Amino acid sequence: MNRDDALALDAADPLAPLRAQFTLPPGLIYLDGNSLGLCPAAAPARLRQVVEQEWAQGLIASWNQAGWISLPQRVGDKIARLVGAGAGELVVADSTSVNLFKVLSAALDLAAAAGPQRRVIVSERDNFPTDLYIAQALAAARGLELRLLEQPGPLAAALDARTAVLMLTQVNYRNGRLHDMAALSAAAHAAGALTVWDLAHSAGALPVDLHRDGADFAVGCGYKYLNGGPGAPAFVWVHPRHAAQVRQPLAGWLGHAAPFDFAPDYVPAPGIARFVSGTPPILSLAALECGVDSVLAAEPLGGLAALRAKSLALTRLFAQRVEALAPATGPALTLASPRADAERGSQVCFSHPEIGYPVMQALIARGVVGDFRAGAAGEADILRFGFTPLYTRFVDAWDAAAHLGQVLALEEWRRPGFDQRRAVT
Amino acid sequence: MNRDDALALDAADPLAPLRAQFTLPPGLIYLDGNSLGLCPAAAPARLRQVVEQEWAQGLIASWNQAGWISLPQRVGDKIARLVGAGAGELVVADSTSVNLFKVLSAALDLAAAAGPQRRVIVSERDNFPTDLYIAQALAAARGLELRLLEQPGPLAAALDARTAVLMLTQVNYRNGRLHDMAALSAAAHAAGALTVWDLAHSAGALPVDLHRDGADFAVGCGYKYLNGGPGAPAFVWVHPRHAAQVRQPLAGWLGHAAPFDFAPDYVPAPGIARFVSGTPPILSLAALECGVDSVLAAEPLGGLAALRAKSLALTRLFAQRVEALAPATGPALTLASPRADAERGSQVCFSHPEIGYPVMQALIARGVVGDFRAGAAGEADILRFGFTPLYTRFVDAWDAAAHLGQVLALEEWRRPGFDQRRAVT
Repeated sequence: MNRDDALALDAADPLAPLRAQFTLPPGLIYLDGNSLGLCPAAAPARLRQVVEQEWAQGLIASWNQAGWISLPQRVGDKIARLVGAGAGELVVADSTSVNLFKVLSAALDLAAAAGPQRRVIVSERDNFPTDLYIAQALAAARGLELRLLEQPGPLAAALDARTAVLMLTQVNYRNGRLHDMAALSAAAHAAGALTVWDLAHSAGALPVDLHRDGADFAVGCGYKYLNGGPGAPAFVWVHPRHAAQVRQPLAGWLGHAAPFDFAPDYVPAPGIARFVSGTPPILSLAALECGVDSVLAAEPLGGLAALRAKSLALTRLFAQRVEALAPATGPALTLASPRADAERGSQVCFSHPEIGYPVMQALIARGVVGDFRAGAAGEADILRFGFTPLYTRFVDAWDAAAHLGQVLALEEWRRPGFDQRRAVT
Repeated sequence: MNRDDALALDAADPLAPLRAQFTLPPGLIYLDGNSLGLCPAAAPARLRQVVEQEWAQGLIASWNQAGWISLPQRVGDKIARLVGAGAGELVVADSTSVNLFKVLSAALDLAAAAGPQRRVIVSERDNFPTDLYIAQALAAARGLELRLLEQPGPLAAALDARTAVLMLTQVNYRNGRLHDMAALSAAAHAAGALTVWDLAHSAGALPVDLHRDGADFAVGCGYKYLNGGPGAPAFVWVHPRHAAQVRQPLAGWLGHAAPFDFAPDYVPAPGIARFVSGTPPILSLAALECGVDSVLAAEPLGGLAALRAKSLALTRLFAQRVEALAPATGPALTLASPRADAERGSQVCFSHPEIGYPVMQALIARGVVGDFRAGAAGEADILRFGFTPLYTRFVDAWDAAAHLGQVLALEEWRRPGFDQRRAVT
């Protein structure tokens, strides 16, 4: 295979036209959509409309006339189509951290009602820190145990009659490892436990089917593969068999059954709407809708199944090319993401014991944007490359690998301009 | 006094030029800034910059290069100047509801540590519902009592050795009654209790001095008198003597002492930064900064003391004119906000037992925008008029009263187009 073959793959790619939905700086190879998605070309005009018309001219009437009041549900229904949830089952609200607090709290209530012996939250030691921090806070407040397992390794075997909740991020933020949601949810349910899934690195990147795969609760992020803009609001889903029974602790006025009655006592809205707390940030929420629409635009072209096939082809190509080009001498880059398609999300990671940070700076100077994550004590640093199939081309994967090969072969990372420290401090 | 006198007051008003900072529909008299502030004229350009440059072109690098990462602190420091807080003591984060959960939870932890007998949260029955709902949820979770007092009425007398926290909104959202923060905080402290103040209807409308007036914790809203845009993020302040000691339960990654270490264990940031939870909605946060800047622009002109003097003059004028013009026959409009300046926030309310809803619709049809709040069982409906001194003119107060007088005198509210139901349903 050569570069022309990569160009031919793009020419034959039925998803290729979706790239035109986005604005990106000329010449940039952007492999960081797993951290902040590109700006949809529709977003500037939509934001102008929201600010200059709906806010400045419509003012308070826009809550009804511009539909602001139903945005959490409207955008939620769109995201639902991407994660195998039904209409009316998912809302946009708050941040992933705050939503995780709501659903984990609700799940722990259910588990406590099921049996006082269910006192353990099981998760993964390398889960995204905010998930661990929220779980630590709730475990401490309730006198529960948070059991963190090393992955890859046996997870299902750790689930037993003491397990309250299995809480996992479907795709690991550092190494891109993809959990088998169906198998793990089945194992949790077999043990009588509930499941909480964080879809931060999977929603919009690969097919998710919350109903089919046995999720009880889920949260996810708006600004990664959903292209919702910096700090876009997050989403929250609760299986309908739980949604009407559970309480969520952040009982804000917009989750009330009749918020505009301004009644003194809290009565939760019938279903998922109770997971809305305060007034949502409309400007950011409007941008998120543009981002979600950019993913939904793939539906007539095969949707997330087609995007997933392209994502796997992109990540395979990039990993193979990097391994082919990396110099054979000196400390080597090691593939840190799973080689097997079924175990990999939409990113490729390489670890290096020493030069990860200056290498990423040299790559960025060449116009290839990935990111760097320092390894914990005893672990190697990670170079992280996200391949959003909605806008990343095969030639981008080809060229990014070529640039990385050049940075290493020419020892470009040694240049004085690049910070030689091992890790960001 | 006649309309020319009102125009003369505007001509002589040193604050009058501040109105030019805002965009508003021609001819509209907007008396709903206590619900959604006007759009600062600077906001559209700033949002274009954030969306089209910082997001679309700067992408992930904008977290540092455009200063997104420090926006919660930067905007927080600006708001601090409006509420008598020091730099580094206040951050922007989440919604008012969510922030109230954080601070009330932290305050209850401190109270529990002070003594197991402190098991009562004291508040006002007519507090804004979200405050009551959050307190109800926390009281239920911790087995505490929420004691709600009718106001006006004795509050300090209800504080005793069983009181954990006095939680109040400084200005009541319905009737505009202003609590004496200094006296009530002193009474709470004398009883050994802590204070939590919600500044939703006071920040940006009148001088607030959290340090001088003995607040322990405070939260506030970004989209009312701070003109931050629909659903703008809220703010949270904790007295420095508490900030470094308390835990807040929504322990998200951005409140960590070193968020970019991605460490598995939560270590709270040294001070108020621990009250940031997840990633903030940058678009909405950028708009909020424009709104806060619009209030800070009054600083060289006397700041909030000058704005407060104008606000009181506006609300006095409006209340007097309405009372002078309202027909003497039929069910009367009754002033529902306090007549004494020292007891009134920046709004004027009238109650009517029957026709409040169609009267407000008729007023809006005339281009005078206030809002309507249905009375609870046994209480009269409220017509609410907010007077944001930053952009409301004396002639607006004059004309709004004249329109209201006309709507009543001509029985314009009887027109078929206006919904004759007593209350919104």
